[in-house]
Amino acid sequence: MDDGTGRTAGTVADRSEVIRYVADAVVPCDGTVPVLRPGAVEVAGDSVVLVGTPADLRSGSPAGVREVRVEGVLLPGMVNTHCHSPMTLFRGTGENLPMLRWLEEVLWPREAHLDAEDVYWGMSLAAVELLAFGVTTTCEMYFHEDATADAVVAAGSRAVITPGVLQLPGTDGGSAWWEACLDRFADFHARRDGEAGRIEIGFAAHAAYTVPLPGLEATAAAARERDALFHLHLAETAGEGDAFTAEHGGSVPEVLASRGVLDGRVLAAHCIWLSPNDLDVLVDHDVAVAHCPQSNAKLASGVAPVVDLLDRGVRVGLGTDGPASNNDLDLWEEMRLAAMLARLRQGDAAALPAAAALDLATRGAGRALGRPDLGVLAPGAKADMMAVSLDDPAFVPLLDDGMLIEHLVWSASSRLVTDVWVGGEQVVTARGHRTIDVERARDEVGRRAARLAAAVA
Amino acid sequence: MDDGTGRTAGTVADRSEVIRYVADAVVPCDGTVPVLRPGAVEVAGDSVVLVGTPADLRSGSPAGVREVRVEGVLLPGMVNTHCHSPMTLFRGTGENLPMLRWLEEVLWPREAHLDAEDVYWGMSLAAVELLAFGVTTTCEMYFHEDATADAVVAAGSRAVITPGVLQLPGTDGGSAWWEACLDRFADFHARRDGEAGRIEIGFAAHAAYTVPLPGLEATAAAARERDALFHLHLAETAGEGDAFTAEHGGSVPEVLASRGVLDGRVLAAHCIWLSPNDLDVLVDHDVAVAHCPQSNAKLASGVAPVVDLLDRGVRVGLGTDGPASNNDLDLWEEMRLAAMLARLRQGDAAALPAAAALDLATRGAGRALGRPDLGVLAPGAKADMMAVSLDDPAFVPLLDDGMLIEHLVWSASSRLVTDVWVGGEQVVTARGHRTIDVERARDEVGRRAARLAAAVA
Repeated sequence: MDDGTGRTAGTVADRSEVIRYVADAVVPCDGTVPVLRPGAVEVAGDSVVLVGTPADLRSGSPAGVREVRVEGVLLPGMVNTHCHSPMTLFRGTGENLPMLRWLEEVLWPREAHLDAEDVYWGMSLAAVELLAFGVTTTCEMYFHEDATADAVVAAGSRAVITPGVLQLPGTDGGSAWWEACLDRFADFHARRDGEAGRIEIGFAAHAAYTVPLPGLEATAAAARERDALFHLHLAETAGEGDAFTAEHGGSVPEVLASRGVLDGRVLAAHCIWLSPNDLDVLVDHDVAVAHCPQSNAKLASGVAPVVDLLDRGVRVGLGTDGPASNNDLDLWEEMRLAAMLARLRQGDAAALPAAAALDLATRGAGRALGRPDLGVLAPGAKADMMAVSLDDPAFVPLLDDGMLIEHLVWSASSRLVTDVWVGGEQVVTARGHRTIDVERARDEVGRRAARLAAAVA
Repeated sequence: MDDGTGRTAGTVADRSEVIRYVADAVVPCDGTVPVLRPGAVEVAGDSVVLVGTPADLRSGSPAGVREVRVEGVLLPGMVNTHCHSPMTLFRGTGENLPMLRWLEEVLWPREAHLDAEDVYWGMSLAAVELLAFGVTTTCEMYFHEDATADAVVAAGSRAVITPGVLQLPGTDGGSAWWEACLDRFADFHARRDGEAGRIEIGFAAHAAYTVPLPGLEATAAAARERDALFHLHLAETAGEGDAFTAEHGGSVPEVLASRGVLDGRVLAAHCIWLSPNDLDVLVDHDVAVAHCPQSNAKLASGVAPVVDLLDRGVRVGLGTDGPASNNDLDLWEEMRLAAMLARLRQGDAAALPAAAALDLATRGAGRALGRPDLGVLAPGAKADMMAVSLDDPAFVPLLDDGMLIEHLVWSASSRLVTDVWVGGEQVVTARGHRTIDVERARDEVGRRAARLAAAVA
């Protein structure tokens, strides 16, 4: 990528400068214009200023705009709405177990030995993958939240970080325990929300089967007071709510709604096992859903009713879940799988067409996080972008604009991402990562994973 | 890749020479040894001679063996058991339609305008993808069989080519019509079976809903007489056998079995809608199954009972189906999807573990074609191989050999294939394809696809 001046794109010293990226095509994912061929995006500082044809933008913009030529298609960076990224440390660990046994027998014992440096390097290695695949934002739920934030800031990526209350089986700290957690998370929010223009802080409670109801209420309240995101796992496996229902006399969504837990900005991951009334509850409370098809399939948890959710106007975005249950962080695969599973579930080859699947990875995912400035290329949006090479059989033939969308979803893949920007800064180029010491991240994770495995041997 | 002599691996002038490939790991996929770390494979001519540790092979082999160092993992080339590869011409065409409408309204009208040159270039572009993804063999069912064979020979890939009897709706040529087809296919078999050591010729009848029963009988008999593969679509969609059953008084498998159609080497693609008795029929006749999970999901056809088939000892291999219903030829994706759909269908996170999924793409697929010399690295097997880079976060951490198999299936992908050999000849290197003019194949397919679209406009 060369702008004709000998400078490399993205080495932007003066952040007040306007840069016009001119590409073979722009797919803004803004819900209106499907494709601009050719297209252009003007960026000032960390935000998009204008999107249009190159001719329109050249005629309408002030002189002195620096123009950068991009080969291929420009798209918004993808948004991963549900992730435990530092679990790169546990990739391939405890395979072929059902979800609850895998948590209880394999993961939680290892996680008891995690330290902050482990999480920093786990997140850093995750960022290597995420950025290479064009995933510019993740919504994170994990331990050692400061280390996660440190790694995201250093990697140049973007994250909504929601540290979570989680009561491991056999432990019972009472209310003092989760109150201490929430004090820490509130301090974390106060210190780091908005950091580097790329960090947002939310609050998580793991799930209704791992956090007592008062803990769920307190976590949601802490989030709501700050207009922060409240993030939880919901209805991931068939039986997980049975004990809760026996105790509280309603399904998890019903009881949480009645106690005010679903007021505010709420993001519920998975949402597979919903009754019709549960679905009504999500609609009534504008609860957003993080749909994680690959994790749900690999763990045999089930298939979320994504078509029903979308038909009812629920905000849905895709998530990879953690790299120990997926086992990568490739949102392109989730996009394709979401469409396939929706078609199988509905028995309808027209269910979740390509454009709708792409929306789940971009604009829809931004909306699910309550962030309309993410996952789109439109004036005011964050300048989080990726360039995708058209120089591949995946894009042959290319007879019309609709076919470009089909190819992006069905035959392209993360391998064709060539350049990635976050907040206007280029973080991935044809030569690799600019921000992360990839070799070191790999070495650290490999060494630390071996230590964690040995600790439980 | 450099063997230390300044020569590039694979430029083998003397085919009687023995070459020892020494890799960081070898995964032979032979059903016994899971991983050799490090490992070595000795190749003479187009076949594997020995597989073992480098130390074992060095001590046991004659002097003068040329040793070539391979970075990463050596695996057998994958085997795609069901494909209509030249349909790269129709990639992204007629999306979001159910299978029968898509065939009748979109594909068949376009295919009526196909010529042999179209098919040659469609197959050539497919070979670009297949070889880049490490898929060294395909089982092909399509028109213009000589053009398909020409393209495979030129590409340096391997194929079982099964030209097919297919009666388009509204046509009725009577028995003379399919007899003429079979005369042509018999001549094709006589001329080209065994060509270049890489071409095998079989016989196909499209399906019981597109070929009259006597045509199915005659096609199967023609194959059986030559010990050739008989290839057909079977039980792909829920209602496709209804008219057949009304006419013949039994399910398609039952009636075909009673008429001798399932004797001999039979490969049935899809096999989703099987009754318990149909499954017994497949078992009793040793019918192999080409499992095509992505095509079946995208077209909402259903999920084949792959765990039941394997439990009953049915030979199962993976297929991509044609690139108009997939929309790529990436068998790595099929492998992962097969495992995910099997787990969802069974409600069991331990169903189809990674090693079993890898088997479906390699050894199992070779066996499904009746070709135990394909999809394995073992003495006497064809020297069809791929090298997969370990230099990626997908392989971090790597704590034991079992984890290597998990990573190959769950976090690696076709993007990590660096080098590919077919019959001992290197066809893909880090610098790209050696055998195919990729630019020309793309241009030809793009131009011809536009012509075919215009022909039906």
